[in-house]
Amino acid sequence: MRHRTIEWCEGKVRFLDQTRLPQAEIIVETDDYEVLAKAIQTLAIRGAPLIGIAAAYGIALAARRASATTADILARQLEKPFVVLGSTRPTAVNLTWALDRLRRIVEQFSTETPERLRTLLQQEALAIHGEDAAMCTAIGNHGADCLPHAAVVLTHCNTGALATGGRGTAQGVISTAWEQHKLKHVYINETRPLLQGARLTAWELESQGIPCTLMVDSVAGFLMQRGIVNAVVVGADRITRRGDVANKVGTYSLAVLARYHDLPFYVAAPSSTLDFELDRGKEIPIEERSGREVTEVGGQKVAPEGVSVYSPAFDITPAELVSGLITEKGIHRPPFHESLNQLRSSLRRGSVK
Amino acid sequence: MRHRTIEWCEGKVRFLDQTRLPQAEIIVETDDYEVLAKAIQTLAIRGAPLIGIAAAYGIALAARRASATTADILARQLEKPFVVLGSTRPTAVNLTWALDRLRRIVEQFSTETPERLRTLLQQEALAIHGEDAAMCTAIGNHGADCLPHAAVVLTHCNTGALATGGRGTAQGVISTAWEQHKLKHVYINETRPLLQGARLTAWELESQGIPCTLMVDSVAGFLMQRGIVNAVVVGADRITRRGDVANKVGTYSLAVLARYHDLPFYVAAPSSTLDFELDRGKEIPIEERSGREVTEVGGQKVAPEGVSVYSPAFDITPAELVSGLITEKGIHRPPFHESLNQLRSSLRRGSVK
Repeated sequence: MRHRTIEWCEGKVRFLDQTRLPQAEIIVETDDYEVLAKAIQTLAIRGAPLIGIAAAYGIALAARRASATTADILARQLEKPFVVLGSTRPTAVNLTWALDRLRRIVEQFSTETPERLRTLLQQEALAIHGEDAAMCTAIGNHGADCLPHAAVVLTHCNTGALATGGRGTAQGVISTAWEQHKLKHVYINETRPLLQGARLTAWELESQGIPCTLMVDSVAGFLMQRGIVNAVVVGADRITRRGDVANKVGTYSLAVLARYHDLPFYVAAPSSTLDFELDRGKEIPIEERSGREVTEVGGQKVAPEGVSVYSPAFDITPAELVSGLITEKGIHRPPFHESLNQLRSSLRRGSVK
Repeated sequence: MRHRTIEWCEGKVRFLDQTRLPQAEIIVETDDYEVLAKAIQTLAIRGAPLIGIAAAYGIALAARRASATTADILARQLEKPFVVLGSTRPTAVNLTWALDRLRRIVEQFSTETPERLRTLLQQEALAIHGEDAAMCTAIGNHGADCLPHAAVVLTHCNTGALATGGRGTAQGVISTAWEQHKLKHVYINETRPLLQGARLTAWELESQGIPCTLMVDSVAGFLMQRGIVNAVVVGADRITRRGDVANKVGTYSLAVLARYHDLPFYVAAPSSTLDFELDRGKEIPIEERSGREVTEVGGQKVAPEGVSVYSPAFDITPAELVSGLITEKGIHRPPFHESLNQLRSSLRRGSVK
């Protein structure tokens, strides 16, 4: 990849339009938060951690363009950008988490000058980006430790540098294991309907020189039956306090198949993916996408006109099917509520200091 | 559907080019068996029962075009067509079964005139077609009986009039249950890579007015978790004597998911799909298709250049995961070897009379 997936550059945001990959690497430069909001909605910017980073940059952009003469007015002018960016996609909690951090800056520094507040918001967005990169590195290291020897990993969707502020979550584990000579091969689910596995993950792994094979999503079971893979590693869009996981649709099927074949099933995600407000996965709102993403591929119709389509973007994997949650703090084993509670406490202590 | 999927018409074969559906209904007319062989290979003609019928017509065409002056010479001239048609696709056993029936005609009537032999071959091909239609009707009736009340059925690939000589196998069950007011809704797996579910099944069910919803293959698990479907019904390309089933890739994953969610998993197929020579599913040859079927959709590239692809066309579902085999003779319940052995005996008696 010749460009960073997203970056702050002299008061503007530059990002890669992921809908155009792998055919074209189109960089979009904008100083308008609404362009970022639209990019999140259309999946030009995607991946739970990256969505959080992009939303944070969106607030920083909105603050720069706001005409406010006091921090108080600026806060009011930012209300709409917070709402617009916050409602781009419902499932990934990193979005809310990142916006909450910026909202706290607005509240905390309401007596500062607007210039100072603008700078602080920009700094916080850059910090979120930088921290995510560091979390990816830590996730990679923890995750590589728990993979079986000569790992042949099956993964789903895209969780690499394109989905995060760093080297990725599940793909961070894969990249690190590869560097440590612990990884033999990666099987990639193409991940219908939007083919993030085929378009993005295959492209990233190929460019890293990691041996990989692409397949349609429904091959996974047969691959496990034949004893070809020895671990499944995926990312997450939201994880509840009991360890239920919302992730790209198809993840739940993989988890059931992994259990049936007695294979470890790992979920890799930064702590910003945890939603301690929720207990059960069924409380997580599941985004439904347009049926056209299923009935049209590359502008070509592949189904009869007017057919009814059910297209949830995510599904819920109950904690019982998860062998381990890999966060930047380490590996959390079931039962998760205890381990995640400790993680919550350590995060609170971290935010106090 | 305005046309029959395949038909014998004044010494020629007319068939629907299924690769062009649902955009266009292109009818191909040919008197050349090699056109049929090519159509089978490219999936213009597909579905295990239909492949058998097409291969039988192919031999009838080859016999018509052969210049033989004796039945003996005709038999020799048919050797190549038998080989070419027999090697079009490796997994569906109906192909071998149909060709074996025509080969027995050739052997049995080697002292007849070539004209008489040509007529007999044509009659046998028409008989195979007609019998398949009758088997579909019987399968539909037996299958509808075993569906739960207000059935919400999940199905995979295409098993309808486009795949058979009649109203279909799994879709025969669906159509019959619908007519008997036992069916509420059908969920259709799009069935990557060739999208037979989206292109063909959705098109057939819509045209029959059967309420249906299309989805990507990886949604199936989530649908079951949410309690939306109460039965899975699929077709088969080959069934061994112990009841292991080769069918379109993704079937095995569905069977595991159905078991995990305690849902009945039925396989509907004519007895011509049974291969009594084989015991274990792993003995069935699994066709691997070109990676381009995965990396290109509608001529559009969806994966990076040169990526490695694993694309088995079929997978194997072990008998243990099958709730019932629905054949034209009735419902066979596990353990299958006993019930299928009885079926074999009844078929033998049938072929003697």
